[in-house]
Amino acid sequence: MTPDPVKVPVRRWTPDGAAPAAEDAVAAEEPLELRVADRSVAVVMRTPGHDRELAAGFLLTEGVIRGADDVLDLVVCRDQAAGASGNVLNALLAPSAPLDLARLTRHVFSSSSCGVCGKATLDAVLQAFPPAAPGPRFDPAVLAGLPASLRAAQPVFASTGGLHGCALFDTSGRLVIVREDVGRHNALDKVLGRALLDGLLPLRRHGLLLSGRVSFELVQKALAAGVPLVAGIGAPSSLAVACATRGGQTLVGFLRADRLNVYAGAERLGLQPP
Amino acid sequence: MTPDPVKVPVRRWTPDGAAPAAEDAVAAEEPLELRVADRSVAVVMRTPGHDRELAAGFLLTEGVIRGADDVLDLVVCRDQAAGASGNVLNALLAPSAPLDLARLTRHVFSSSSCGVCGKATLDAVLQAFPPAAPGPRFDPAVLAGLPASLRAAQPVFASTGGLHGCALFDTSGRLVIVREDVGRHNALDKVLGRALLDGLLPLRRHGLLLSGRVSFELVQKALAAGVPLVAGIGAPSSLAVACATRGGQTLVGFLRADRLNVYAGAERLGLQPP
Repeated sequence: MTPDPVKVPVRRWTPDGAAPAAEDAVAAEEPLELRVADRSVAVVMRTPGHDRELAAGFLLTEGVIRGADDVLDLVVCRDQAAGASGNVLNALLAPSAPLDLARLTRHVFSSSSCGVCGKATLDAVLQAFPPAAPGPRFDPAVLAGLPASLRAAQPVFASTGGLHGCALFDTSGRLVIVREDVGRHNALDKVLGRALLDGLLPLRRHGLLLSGRVSFELVQKALAAGVPLVAGIGAPSSLAVACATRGGQTLVGFLRADRLNVYAGAERLGLQPP
Repeated sequence: MTPDPVKVPVRRWTPDGAAPAAEDAVAAEEPLELRVADRSVAVVMRTPGHDRELAAGFLLTEGVIRGADDVLDLVVCRDQAAGASGNVLNALLAPSAPLDLARLTRHVFSSSSCGVCGKATLDAVLQAFPPAAPGPRFDPAVLAGLPASLRAAQPVFASTGGLHGCALFDTSGRLVIVREDVGRHNALDKVLGRALLDGLLPLRRHGLLLSGRVSFELVQKALAAGVPLVAGIGAPSSLAVACATRGGQTLVGFLRADRLNVYAGAERLGLQPP
C-alpha cells in the first residue's frame, strides 16, 4: 500500500501577477501513538500506511526489541465510538523481549548528574548495538545506479515532492523494500520493520539507501538491524561519520550516477581507507 | 558565530575507477542536553553554536516559556574535571514562567486512555498557542527573492551541503536573523530564540523562511512566536496546511525565484483564498 497524497486547494503565483486557483497534492502527515502493552511510549508524526512496520522498526531501532520473536502482535486500535482514526497502535511483546522501556526515554536523561558533558560525546548517545559483521563486498558502480532506481520507485514523492524515501537493497543493486514518509526516520523504520516482520534480521548482506542527508541517528538505526552499509544521496554529518566508523559500517554520501564519497568502511567497496 | 564544519578524510570515487583520498568538510553534529532548573528535559542532536538561542527557542516553541521575561539565565555547563564539552545547557527560569514541564513530554502521553484515536487528529497534537494576528501584507515578488538571499547567507551549507537554513525576514525582504543546523527544528528554534533574547516577540511583522520541506511541527513552532507567515523552499505536509489554516497563518511552499504556492492565508499576499 502506497500512502495516498492529500489534495488541497492552492494559489499558484507567478511574477506576471497571475495566481490561478488550483489543486495540489501534498504528502499526508498524521500523528501515530505507539503503545507497548497498552502503555503509551511515543507519538510519531508520520505518513499513514505501513504502520505496523513503522512500529516494529521503531521498537527495533530504539533497542526495545531484537527481532520478530520478540513481537506477539501489533494491533491497530480502532475506537469506533469516538470515530476510528487508526492513529493508535499497540504492540504486544513476547515474554522474551527485553522490554526496557527506559531506552525510549534515552533522550530525556533522568539523572541530574552531568550526563553528556561528563562523558565522551559519542558514548553518551550511542546505543549498545553490536558492530556490523565484516563483508559483503559492494560494487561502487552498482551503488551509483541506486538513486535512479529509488526515484523510479517513489510514486508519492513524484506527485508531492514532500516525502523522504528509504530502500533496502542487495549487493546486485536490487531494491528489496522501499518506503516513503514525511519523516526520514520513519521511512527507515518502516523498511527495517518490514524486514523484521519478514524474519530477515540481521541484514548482513544488504545496504540502506536514503533519499536525503545522513544524520547520526539514521546510521545507528541501521546498525540496530545489522546493516553494514548506509548510502545517502545527501551529505553526512560529523557524528554520522563517527558512528559508522565505530560501528564498523560503510558510509557513503553524495551518491550520484557519476560519483560518490566514502567516509567509512571503504574496504566493502574494494577501496583503501581514506 | 557560524558553526565550523568538521574536516574528515574521504575517498571520492568516480566511474573511471579512480578513488583519490581527499578531505571533506561535513556539518558538525553533537548532542546538547537541555536542563531546566538542573532537571534534564531533553537531548537534542544539533550543530554546535548558538546554543543559548537554541535553548531559548526550544523552550518557547515547546510552550515552556512565553518570552524573555521568563528566562533568568541560560548557562552552559562546563565540567572541567571530566573534560569540558559544552554540551549541557541549564535554563534558570523566572518565578513567572509557567514551568509546565509536562509539555515537553507531550509526545509521550502518560494516559492509557485512547489518546489520539479518541480525539480529532489535530486537536491531539496542537499546542494551545493563540492564533496569529491579522496582517501584515507581504509582496509575493519580495518572497520570490528570498531563496537567493538565504543561499548567500548560508556559508556552512555552501561548504558541506549538510545544513538546514532558517531565516527571519521583514516585509521588505531583508533577512533579520539567519541560522543553520543539521536539524531543521533546531535552525528554526535558534532563529526564534535569538528573537526572544532580543525582546522582539511576538513577531507579528515578520515571516520565516525554511530551506526545506514544511512539516506540521515547524508551522506550530512559528505560531509559538506569533509569526504570521511561513515560507518553505520545499513541499508542505497535509498537517502543516491544516495547522496554518487553523492558526490564521500564511503558508507558502515551493518558493522559487519565478513561482510560489500559497496554501493558507492568501490575503496577506493580496490574493483571493485558494
